[in-house]
Amino acid sequence: MVLTDPRLRDGPQVAAVQASLGGAGIDATVYDRVRVEPTDRSFREAIQEADRGQYDGFVAVGGGSVIDTAKAANLYHTYPADFLDYVNHPVGRGRPVPGPLKPLIAVPTTAGTGSETTGVAIFDLEGLHAKTGIAHRALKPTVGIVDPDNTRSMPPLAAACTGLDVLSHAIESYTALPYTQRPAPDDPSLRPAYQGSNPMSDVWSARAIEMVAANLPAAIAGDTEPQAQMLLAATFAGIGFGNAGCHLPHGMSYPVSSNVRDFHPEGYPDDHPMIPHGMSVILNAPAVFRWTAPAEPQRHLQAAALMGADVSGVGPDDAGEATANAIIDLMRRTGMPNGLSGVGYTPADIDVLVRGTLPQHRVTKLSPRPFDEADLRGMFESAMRYW
Amino acid sequence: MVLTDPRLRDGPQVAAVQASLGGAGIDATVYDRVRVEPTDRSFREAIQEADRGQYDGFVAVGGGSVIDTAKAANLYHTYPADFLDYVNHPVGRGRPVPGPLKPLIAVPTTAGTGSETTGVAIFDLEGLHAKTGIAHRALKPTVGIVDPDNTRSMPPLAAACTGLDVLSHAIESYTALPYTQRPAPDDPSLRPAYQGSNPMSDVWSARAIEMVAANLPAAIAGDTEPQAQMLLAATFAGIGFGNAGCHLPHGMSYPVSSNVRDFHPEGYPDDHPMIPHGMSVILNAPAVFRWTAPAEPQRHLQAAALMGADVSGVGPDDAGEATANAIIDLMRRTGMPNGLSGVGYTPADIDVLVRGTLPQHRVTKLSPRPFDEADLRGMFESAMRYW
Ligand SMILES: [Fe+2]
Ligand SMILES: [Fe+2]
Repeated sequence: MVLTDPRLRDGPQVAAVQASLGGAGIDATVYDRVRVEPTDRSFREAIQEADRGQYDGFVAVGGGSVIDTAKAANLYHTYPADFLDYVNHPVGRGRPVPGPLKPLIAVPTTAGTGSETTGVAIFDLEGLHAKTGIAHRALKPTVGIVDPDNTRSMPPLAAACTGLDVLSHAIESYTALPYTQRPAPDDPSLRPAYQGSNPMSDVWSARAIEMVAANLPAAIAGDTEPQAQMLLAATFAGIGFGNAGCHLPHGMSYPVSSNVRDFHPEGYPDDHPMIPHGMSVILNAPAVFRWTAPAEPQRHLQAAALMGADVSGVGPDDAGEATANAIIDLMRRTGMPNGLSGVGYTPADIDVLVRGTLPQHRVTKLSPRPFDEADLRGMFESAMRYW
Repeated sequence: MVLTDPRLRDGPQVAAVQASLGGAGIDATVYDRVRVEPTDRSFREAIQEADRGQYDGFVAVGGGSVIDTAKAANLYHTYPADFLDYVNHPVGRGRPVPGPLKPLIAVPTTAGTGSETTGVAIFDLEGLHAKTGIAHRALKPTVGIVDPDNTRSMPPLAAACTGLDVLSHAIESYTALPYTQRPAPDDPSLRPAYQGSNPMSDVWSARAIEMVAANLPAAIAGDTEPQAQMLLAATFAGIGFGNAGCHLPHGMSYPVSSNVRDFHPEGYPDDHPMIPHGMSVILNAPAVFRWTAPAEPQRHLQAAALMGADVSGVGPDDAGEATANAIIDLMRRTGMPNGLSGVGYTPADIDVLVRGTLPQHRVTKLSPRPFDEADLRGMFESAMRYW
């Protein structure tokens, strides 16, 4: 079963996959009804198709939405269950995946999600109006085919947004609550996919921070080698956050995206207002890291240094400011709006944004600094305007 | 089947494994006849025991010799074959492993080989008097339990030798022939375990170089946190070289070890002369990198920088000297002999050392610079004395 979305259906990547499977004598059907920003309903449709076709393997050609949908189709087809069984607690029952899934080959066509490396599938639960997910290491694709030729055609603003999403994945993973500070589960099989920052994920996260800062502006400008480095950085950051986890910038991004009123980013479909995922993440990031830095100043300083900031004279008290400034510098060079006010929010919206963040335990519980509603409010206030 | 060596048989690590298995209701037998520096004969003995016991899983408690023996026992027990079938070409038939093996849990008790991360099992083929191996990704242990408490008891010289082995694994992987310059195999299933330096292995190799340089002297002195960092560096370098491969310092080390005359290192068994593996590797390393640097000066400079050398004013022509000097500095600080002359070799031995290196294709083919006998001779000459 080859999964893709309608926009990619007739593109060269799907054709290459079909030619390759055909050449190997493998019978395949293309399913192109993946929804960008998938929901439980669009997941279920793909699962039904997987059940109908009795496929023995999956190929996902697309961005994170396609790869995540393929993970869900593979899971429920291999181990049928009530849909909420495998969905993260407390929205679902958080039941562990019983065993290995069928082979899944992921071919990313965007440099952003790193979903080809993770055991996580994210979707919107309709009715609940909340992002949630299914997370288990058995969901990780068997193979990722990470080829920059598949990502060349992104418009500049989409390249900027996906690239800054990668940056935030990496800094969030690098500064996430350390794994030594998380309570151990009763049983190792209940260990969460997101384990907090740890020495293995740190290696990937640190390198990804460095690569994004060094390559993003040139990749947006269309240089091919920096574009290849950005795709690799997305994969590296995916390994990092797929093991460590993201925290507040992602948790706060979901209400920012879903409460959009009239923002229409250049190069995106113009039929409805939207704030691209990477943009809604990075708009929160400087405010968050200013606030989380006191919990672990050295790591925040190191993140700033990896972005190329000179931190030789910077003390621990200024670690948050150093990280924030390095991110803001990159936001300005990549054409991001000036904070949440730049995409139409005003202080009157903060209540809604805070209420929309509170249910995002999946990620916010990895904040290195414990927070309450007032802290969230303060971060959204400080995210309104950066320059 | 719990594999270990006679020296560890009654130690706390084996006892902890037995208690843990017993507590989980798992019936286990301890096999303690692993040979340190294993041979085909000692591999076969372990394989016979695996066949006799019909085990459904393996636990290796020990250094690289134990873990490699467990890989071989697991392989030939799961997919019986003539012993030479899976052994590397041209010594053996280089047949790919047919499928997944039974679970193998590796518990390293030394910080050196990184065997818990690799798909490689190294042994001496008796009669041929040559190191060779079995290499396939299916050999990789299922889980590695990397706990610094298991490696605390190393004598100082052993800590130095294993640590410098890690350093060389990392620099060799980082400077190995790039994967883009190796001929592609006819079929992906024939792709070798050692693929040449590549963007994924580079991440691990670079970080390991940095960690060894920063932590080895303090780890030798007995500080526990640097010891933990060294064990982690061994694992990181293992992921690096297990994918990229080592090259000349390892290829040249085998004849250096096997032609020892009367060297007796402090803290090692005194019943026979020996040159520890890590020592025989690092004694060649500065001479090799001086010679390979012209093939890729930037990577050699970067290796020196990762070891803490100031390379800001160093041009590409001096990259080899910079790398060599950074290694020599660490050798002096960790009590290594002054080159091959320090372990009893003279220029009259060079013929024998060159002849012993030539059959080591498995690793030497990854040299970033093509070499002939005269080049090897030159490197051994320059390795005789460093200060
Ligand atoms: Fe993201
Ligand atoms: Fe070694």
